[in-house]
Amino acid sequence: MADDKKLTTRAVDFSAWYNETVLRAELADYSPVRGCMVIRPRGYGIWERMQRQLDTAFKDTGHQNAYFPLLIPESFLRKEAEHVEGFAPQTAVVTHGGGKKLDEPLIIRPTSETMIYAMFAKWVQSYRDLPLLINQWANVVRWEMRTRLFLRTLEFLWQEGHTAHATEAEAEEETRRMLNVYRDFMEAWMAMPVVTGLKTDSERFAGAVRTYSCEAMMQDNKALQAGTSHNLGQNFARAFDLKFQSESGSTEFAWNTSWGVSTRLVGGLVMTHGDDFGLRIPPFLAPIELVIVPIWRNDEDRTRVLETARSILADLSGWERRKTGKLRVHLDDREGMKPGAKYYEWELRGIPLRLEFGPRDLDANQCVLVRRDNRVKRTVTLDSIGEDVSDLLSIMQTDMRVAAFDRREANSIRGGITYDRFREVMEGDGAFVYAGFCGSATCEQTIKEETKATIRVLPDEEFRSAEAPETCLRCGAKSVVEALWAKAY
Amino acid sequence: MADDKKLTTRAVDFSAWYNETVLRAELADYSPVRGCMVIRPRGYGIWERMQRQLDTAFKDTGHQNAYFPLLIPESFLRKEAEHVEGFAPQTAVVTHGGGKKLDEPLIIRPTSETMIYAMFAKWVQSYRDLPLLINQWANVVRWEMRTRLFLRTLEFLWQEGHTAHATEAEAEEETRRMLNVYRDFMEAWMAMPVVTGLKTDSERFAGAVRTYSCEAMMQDNKALQAGTSHNLGQNFARAFDLKFQSESGSTEFAWNTSWGVSTRLVGGLVMTHGDDFGLRIPPFLAPIELVIVPIWRNDEDRTRVLETARSILADLSGWERRKTGKLRVHLDDREGMKPGAKYYEWELRGIPLRLEFGPRDLDANQCVLVRRDNRVKRTVTLDSIGEDVSDLLSIMQTDMRVAAFDRREANSIRGGITYDRFREVMEGDGAFVYAGFCGSATCEQTIKEETKATIRVLPDEEFRSAEAPETCLRCGAKSVVEALWAKAY
Repeated sequence: MADDKKLTTRAVDFSAWYNETVLRAELADYSPVRGCMVIRPRGYGIWERMQRQLDTAFKDTGHQNAYFPLLIPESFLRKEAEHVEGFAPQTAVVTHGGGKKLDEPLIIRPTSETMIYAMFAKWVQSYRDLPLLINQWANVVRWEMRTRLFLRTLEFLWQEGHTAHATEAEAEEETRRMLNVYRDFMEAWMAMPVVTGLKTDSERFAGAVRTYSCEAMMQDNKALQAGTSHNLGQNFARAFDLKFQSESGSTEFAWNTSWGVSTRLVGGLVMTHGDDFGLRIPPFLAPIELVIVPIWRNDEDRTRVLETARSILADLSGWERRKTGKLRVHLDDREGMKPGAKYYEWELRGIPLRLEFGPRDLDANQCVLVRRDNRVKRTVTLDSIGEDVSDLLSIMQTDMRVAAFDRREANSIRGGITYDRFREVMEGDGAFVYAGFCGSATCEQTIKEETKATIRVLPDEEFRSAEAPETCLRCGAKSVVEALWAKAY
Repeated sequence: MADDKKLTTRAVDFSAWYNETVLRAELADYSPVRGCMVIRPRGYGIWERMQRQLDTAFKDTGHQNAYFPLLIPESFLRKEAEHVEGFAPQTAVVTHGGGKKLDEPLIIRPTSETMIYAMFAKWVQSYRDLPLLINQWANVVRWEMRTRLFLRTLEFLWQEGHTAHATEAEAEEETRRMLNVYRDFMEAWMAMPVVTGLKTDSERFAGAVRTYSCEAMMQDNKALQAGTSHNLGQNFARAFDLKFQSESGSTEFAWNTSWGVSTRLVGGLVMTHGDDFGLRIPPFLAPIELVIVPIWRNDEDRTRVLETARSILADLSGWERRKTGKLRVHLDDREGMKPGAKYYEWELRGIPLRLEFGPRDLDANQCVLVRRDNRVKRTVTLDSIGEDVSDLLSIMQTDMRVAAFDRREANSIRGGITYDRFREVMEGDGAFVYAGFCGSATCEQTIKEETKATIRVLPDEEFRSAEAPETCLRCGAKSVVEALWAKAY
């Protein structure tokens, strides 16, 4: 596709819009290996900022990073019955190494519970060694048949937290704590509001006792499972003999949790904030927060405009913001390219603020600031440009979060929806539907087959409707719990 | 091994000392997969600090991070003749995915030249797209038969820089620039001096035109190849059709470089600085720079000592140091463990400074600071503890570098060594030997077979002897270049 062609609009084909935006904003590219993507610098820069903030949050909650092997003996997977059932069909298998057939095939980790709890069993002897709070930044491989850039790829980058605790209550507390760390990050940094809650058994992590999830609404009203946190009970501790001597001298199995988010979040960011002009990056995560585009018509103008542009660059680059550090500013001084073409490109790439600046502005000691989120222009004096930019970025971060929240709420349905109407909604524009659920796996399965919608979560209290629904969405039996239904990625 | 047993000394068995130190300082552990290690938090914390500093240096020299697939089609490797010869015997091969046999086997990247230059070919059209300066932080797998913790493992973590340039001169400049980035990091941050220079053909990277290396001397007088930088010429550009339109309109192949360092550096740090009490971490890279060990005999003492210890902790943790940020301080307030046992443990772990502090110190408003490098104790007033600690850490960083430099020079031999004496040295304590070389690959190979020593590098000018050697170390023919010989890891 030529770079000057307009993007397919979201209304016409959301899926095509997404792919075009990811490719043309140079976030990622297809690779020569089916289902594996290349994360380009503009995409990796967003992931790096996500990593840095999450890593800080993990360390602030007492976790330490470590690194475990990529390759796992096939037999390890089989030690936990549900786990192997869930992951075995998706494995990539190494059968040969150093030119020889291996005695036992090795799988590329699809997740690391088995390896990590095998090591924990070696390290933990006593209650004094607990809690053990570990995180790993790593790549994993799951052999997916249908892949989408960032959203579902054979290989992806993620972090996986793994912890061991002396009591069930502590493990549950950790599971919830990390779910909230994710939620805070998604809302404050990604400007992406989420609904948190418990997964039903059908969507539970293979090997977990309970799985909690953060679910975000994309602009096509589908849900994206953005992060999960699992209470693993003693399932893996039993499988890998992870025991400890308690304070009273008895020998007990430890209680585990695991939790992860992945490069999928970059896809979530695109589908939450992008518009028909391309990407819109929330300022906190933007590798470049502001781009300066100087304007000139002749060489004389060029000299004096560029000189001032460079001094603005130096001035702004020195600004330190509380949460996000030094302002990240870029000067686009490319020759032989019209300002309009530069605007178009930086809009496509989603840079939050653009500073336009020409000879007349110079004479008037002013410049034009253009917000990417709402494309509103504002002429400001150069005297207080640092304050103005800093304030605008904070306002944009909030505005983007509020806009995403309002969009989600406008596309959420609560209270007394009939099943016929539900089917219409799911066949049409989709929505987050809060409705009663009888608790039967059969009912859940039937609804999924009939509408492609699934229970995203049994929402946490703050997300539940003021009046609890009385009957099940489909079967009309007494509702035992409120469920959030949606089609999902 | 019981934790209170003394380490094997370096003099008795350097190799055993190394393994014990790595395991007991909890830097790493063996995993259930042959040749693959687990990097534990105390080891990963050092690697994280290395990463952060190197990443900053890469970005300061204009590079951007990206991420490329783990899996590479087997056919890609074969496109560059020398490359496949060098790496094919070491590959791990994925033959099955998602339960099915693959049409074409995929190898786990042993290095990413093939994948990355295939992508560069897609992205580069014109000289305006050059230079393209990319770095990747990733894991790689090389099927080694004899493995050592950190030094040689089947899987390791590293960074690999890959760049494309419009001219041969620019590529050579980049190759040298990154070699110097490595050298500066190794000397300033790891306190590990290196000799830089060119590899001979026999040690050149498979597919490169020229390989430069940083070689460090370990305490057993063996060399560790700590980082390499390769000028790839147009070899990969030709193999992957990486062309660009030049400013004059002609179509040209690009010129490439690649360069990498790995978790092997952690092993290098241990073997450069460790002593018979365990690890010694240079302050710049220490995840904890200072540990506070409070001393008490009864409950009354305990309360007031701990109170002051916590206020020292708060005070010191607020100290900001120019290059390395906030002071990293830990308070060891574990109950039921004698101070002596704590000292022993923190010495083993290599924490640079220990602050001892008991009731009598409290009365005298003082504490004892113990340097890990030379174990010198000093009583200092609490009034200026921040300045004293900060100064001592700077001094230690320098002292450790100077000590490593002096040790290397004391074990280097220059000028007029006979081949008989050379064989004696290599059979005995080993050394870095600077000697004349006739340039013949046969002579090089014979010396290697007879002594196990190899040419580490043809040293850069500043490392060469004041008087160039006149004859070849072994054959006595006219020397064409000075070579640095040593046994190596």
